[in-house]
Amino acid sequence: MSSSEQIAKNARRAGNVLKTISDKNRSNVLYKIHDELKKNASTIEKANQLDLEAAITSGLSPSLIKRLDLFKGDKFDTMLQGIKDVADLEDPVGKVKIARQLDEDLILYQVTAPVGVLLVIFESRPEVIANITALAIKSGNAGILKGGKESVNTFREMARIINGTISRYEAETGVPVGSVQLIETREDVSGLLLQDEYIDLVVPRGSNALVRQIKANTKIPVLGHADGICSVYLDDEADLEKAKRITLDAKTNYPAGCNAMETLLINPKLPNWWRVLDHLSRKGDVVLHLTKDAKEAYIQKLKEEGTFDDFSSTKIVDVDESKDFDGEFLSLDCAVKFVSSTKEAIEHINLHSSKHTDAIVTENEQHAELFLKGIDSSGVYWNASTRFADGFRYGFGTEVGISTSKIHARGPVGLDGLVTYQYQLRGTGQVASDYLGAGGKKAFVHKDLDITKVTL
Amino acid sequence: MSSSEQIAKNARRAGNVLKTISDKNRSNVLYKIHDELKKNASTIEKANQLDLEAAITSGLSPSLIKRLDLFKGDKFDTMLQGIKDVADLEDPVGKVKIARQLDEDLILYQVTAPVGVLLVIFESRPEVIANITALAIKSGNAGILKGGKESVNTFREMARIINGTISRYEAETGVPVGSVQLIETREDVSGLLLQDEYIDLVVPRGSNALVRQIKANTKIPVLGHADGICSVYLDDEADLEKAKRITLDAKTNYPAGCNAMETLLINPKLPNWWRVLDHLSRKGDVVLHLTKDAKEAYIQKLKEEGTFDDFSSTKIVDVDESKDFDGEFLSLDCAVKFVSSTKEAIEHINLHSSKHTDAIVTENEQHAELFLKGIDSSGVYWNASTRFADGFRYGFGTEVGISTSKIHARGPVGLDGLVTYQYQLRGTGQVASDYLGAGGKKAFVHKDLDITKVTL
Repeated sequence: MSSSEQIAKNARRAGNVLKTISDKNRSNVLYKIHDELKKNASTIEKANQLDLEAAITSGLSPSLIKRLDLFKGDKFDTMLQGIKDVADLEDPVGKVKIARQLDEDLILYQVTAPVGVLLVIFESRPEVIANITALAIKSGNAGILKGGKESVNTFREMARIINGTISRYEAETGVPVGSVQLIETREDVSGLLLQDEYIDLVVPRGSNALVRQIKANTKIPVLGHADGICSVYLDDEADLEKAKRITLDAKTNYPAGCNAMETLLINPKLPNWWRVLDHLSRKGDVVLHLTKDAKEAYIQKLKEEGTFDDFSSTKIVDVDESKDFDGEFLSLDCAVKFVSSTKEAIEHINLHSSKHTDAIVTENEQHAELFLKGIDSSGVYWNASTRFADGFRYGFGTEVGISTSKIHARGPVGLDGLVTYQYQLRGTGQVASDYLGAGGKKAFVHKDLDITKVTL
Repeated sequence: MSSSEQIAKNARRAGNVLKTISDKNRSNVLYKIHDELKKNASTIEKANQLDLEAAITSGLSPSLIKRLDLFKGDKFDTMLQGIKDVADLEDPVGKVKIARQLDEDLILYQVTAPVGVLLVIFESRPEVIANITALAIKSGNAGILKGGKESVNTFREMARIINGTISRYEAETGVPVGSVQLIETREDVSGLLLQDEYIDLVVPRGSNALVRQIKANTKIPVLGHADGICSVYLDDEADLEKAKRITLDAKTNYPAGCNAMETLLINPKLPNWWRVLDHLSRKGDVVLHLTKDAKEAYIQKLKEEGTFDDFSSTKIVDVDESKDFDGEFLSLDCAVKFVSSTKEAIEHINLHSSKHTDAIVTENEQHAELFLKGIDSSGVYWNASTRFADGFRYGFGTEVGISTSKIHARGPVGLDGLVTYQYQLRGTGQVASDYLGAGGKKAFVHKDLDITKVTL
C-alpha cells in the first residue's frame, strides 16, 4: 500500500468515527486545542523563527516574510480566538432538512452529515492550519492538511501539539487520532489526489495555478475557484451615479480579490455612459482596455468635452480580445466592451465568465430579472458591487472558500459546504412488500412534518 | 470543432435560454409535446415495429423484446400521462432557500436554479426518452440524450416529433431548439464525456458496467450508482420477528433491485438468530453464503433442532470473502457474517458497502443511533427494509435516479437533483467599501427573513 493510500485510509477510518461524535465533544476538543496551542506558544514561536530565518536566507520578499510571521501583532491571539469562534458556531451536522411521514411509525428524515474526508491544500500562512483544523473537526470531517512549504517548521510543531491534544483527550471526547493529518510534500499531494475512494472533497486555498492543476489531476470533487472573472453590465437604463459607485468599488476596492470586476460591459444607449469610464480612470486610476468601437466612441466624447488632452494615452489601451475577457487582471486594469442589450450581456458573460459573480446596474426591473435568471454564475447581482461576494459579508460566520463549481457548494461557502446529507428512515419493522408497487396493498401517507418541531 | 463539442455548445446555449423561461412556458411545451406524440402515435408505432423486427432477427431475448415494445398494453398511454404528470409538478426552479437582509435595501437570496446541461444515457426502453425530456425541460436543463441502440428507430422518430414541437412553439413558449438533442453512437458519448466545460451533470441509467465505465472516463459529476451493496445488521437486541420480516423483504421482494440486501450481518448474541437464516432459506429460497464460523454455528443449531437433514447443502455455501462482500448478487443469494457489536457492523459496512442503503434491526435505541450516525451511506435505516430506498416511496413524485455519490444528490433523487442554487443579491447601489472590513464603517445587519413570505 502506498503511503498516500495509507494516509487516506487512516483519514477515512477517523472520519467514520468522527461523524458519530456529538457537537459538544467536537467543540470540546477544539477548546482543548486552543488551550494547548496557547500554552505552547513559545515552542511554536521557536519553530516559526526557523521558518522566518530560512525565508530571509532564501531571499523571500518582505510581504511573504510578513505572512510567515505568526507572532506579528495580534496574529497568534486572533488565530486562537478563531478556534473558539468556530467551536461556538451552530452545529452544522444533524440538522433535519426534511421530515416526512411515509406511514404510521415510518418517518423519513433528511439530515445533514459530514462529507467525510477533506484534503485541504493551503498557502504558507501558519495560522491557517488552526483554522482548517477547527473547520474540519467542527463539521465532523477528517482532514488531511498540506500547507505551503515555507511554514513547514511552524506547521509541524502546531500539528504535533494538535495531534497530541486529540490523542490525550481521545478517551474523553471520542475524537479519534487521525482526524487531522499533516502531510509535507508535493508527492504526497499527487498521491492523495488519486485516492477518490477514500477522500470526498479537495479544498485548495492558493494560487489559481495550483487550483487549476489540482482540478486537472483528480476525480475528487474540488471546492474552490481557479479564476474570478467578474463582470458588471451597465444597462441602458442604469442610474449613472450607481454605475459610477458600483464599478469603482468593484474594480478598485481590492483589485487582487477574486470578486473584483475584470470586465465592464456597457450598453452605449445609456446616456453619458462614458462618464463611468472617466470616473474609473480619473478617480480610480484604472487602465481601460477598450474594444475598438468603445475606444473610438470614448475618445470622441472626450474630444467633444475638450478633456481629451488631459488624458495619458496609457490609461486607454486596446483590449486584447484573445485573452482580456477570459482571464483576471488582478490589478487596476479593466476590459471594456459595448453590448447592445441585456441579452447580449448575458451571452458574453455566460461565455467568458468563470461563474463567480456578475452584476447588472439598471433601474429597469425586467432587464434585471432577465439578467438574474439568465446568468449562469454562483452570484448574480442587481445594483450592488461584486465585492459583496464573500462569506463574512453573506453572514456565514466563517468562510471555507469560494466555489465556482455548479454543484454541491456555490459561491462563498461556509461550514455548510463541508456537510452533505443522509436519509434516515426510522420504522418499526415495516417492509416494502406490504405497500402498493411492491406487491402489497398499503398506500404511502407522504405527509411532511414541521421540521422546526422535530428533534432526533 | 468536434461534433461532440458542437453538440455540447448547442446544449449550453439552449440551457442558458431555458433557465430564463417561466415554469408556465416550460410546462406548456411539455403539454404540446404530449399532444404531438399522441397525434403521431402511428408513425411512432411504425418505427417501433422496425426496432422489434430487428430485435427478433438478431435473436434478442423475449424479455428484452418485451421492453422494446412501446405499444404493449397501456405502455404508450402511461408514457403520455407521465409527461403531463411531470409538467404538473411544482416548479423546482426559483425556490427561495435563504433570504437574508445584509443591510437596508440590500437583500441576499439563495434561489434554486437549473444545473445547466445534462447528458443522460439510458437503456433501450423507448418510453424513457419522453420521461427524460419531461424531466429536463421541467427543471430548466438542456438535455443531451443517448438511448440504447436497440430502440434507435423509435427514439429517432420520437426525437423528430419532440424537436419539431419545440421548434414550432419556440416563439410562443421561448423554449429553444437545442433543449433536447438525441445522439446515436457510443463515439458521441465518449466525446461528450470530455466536454466538462459545457456539460454539468451525467445521468447514466443502465447497467453497473456502463455506470462504472462512465465514471472512469469523465470529470463531469455523475448522478447515479454502479452498485447497490446494501446490508442489514441484526443487533443482539433485535426483535426476531422484525428481523425475519425485514430480511426476507430486503432480500426477496425484488432481488435484482439496487436496494436489495446483499449482505446480512448478525450479532450471534441475538437469541435464536439462526431462525432468521431458516426463514430466509425456507420461506425465501435464499442461498446463504456463510463465513466459516457462521456456517458451523448454524449447522450446529440445525443439528440440535434435528432439522439439519431437511436441508439441501446447496442452500448453505461458503462465502467467498474475496468478493461476496464487495459485489451484488442480484439474485436469491446473500452473504452472511457474524459481527460482535454495532461498531463492528458499522466498520464492515463502511468498508464494503457502496454507500447506497443499510439497515439495523434493533430495539436498543443507543445502538440504533450509533448506527444511524456512523454509517456513511445515503440511506441509513432503523427497523425498516432497505427496499424503501426509492423515489416514489420517499414521495418525490418522480425519480431521476439513485445516487451513491456523497455530494450534490444522494440516495433516491427527484427533480431536486437536477437543480442547484445561485445567490441573488438585490441592492440599490451599495458598495463594499462602505462597510467594515473593506474600508468603511457600516456594519452588516445579517437578519434572516421568513422565506415563506418572500416572492421574487
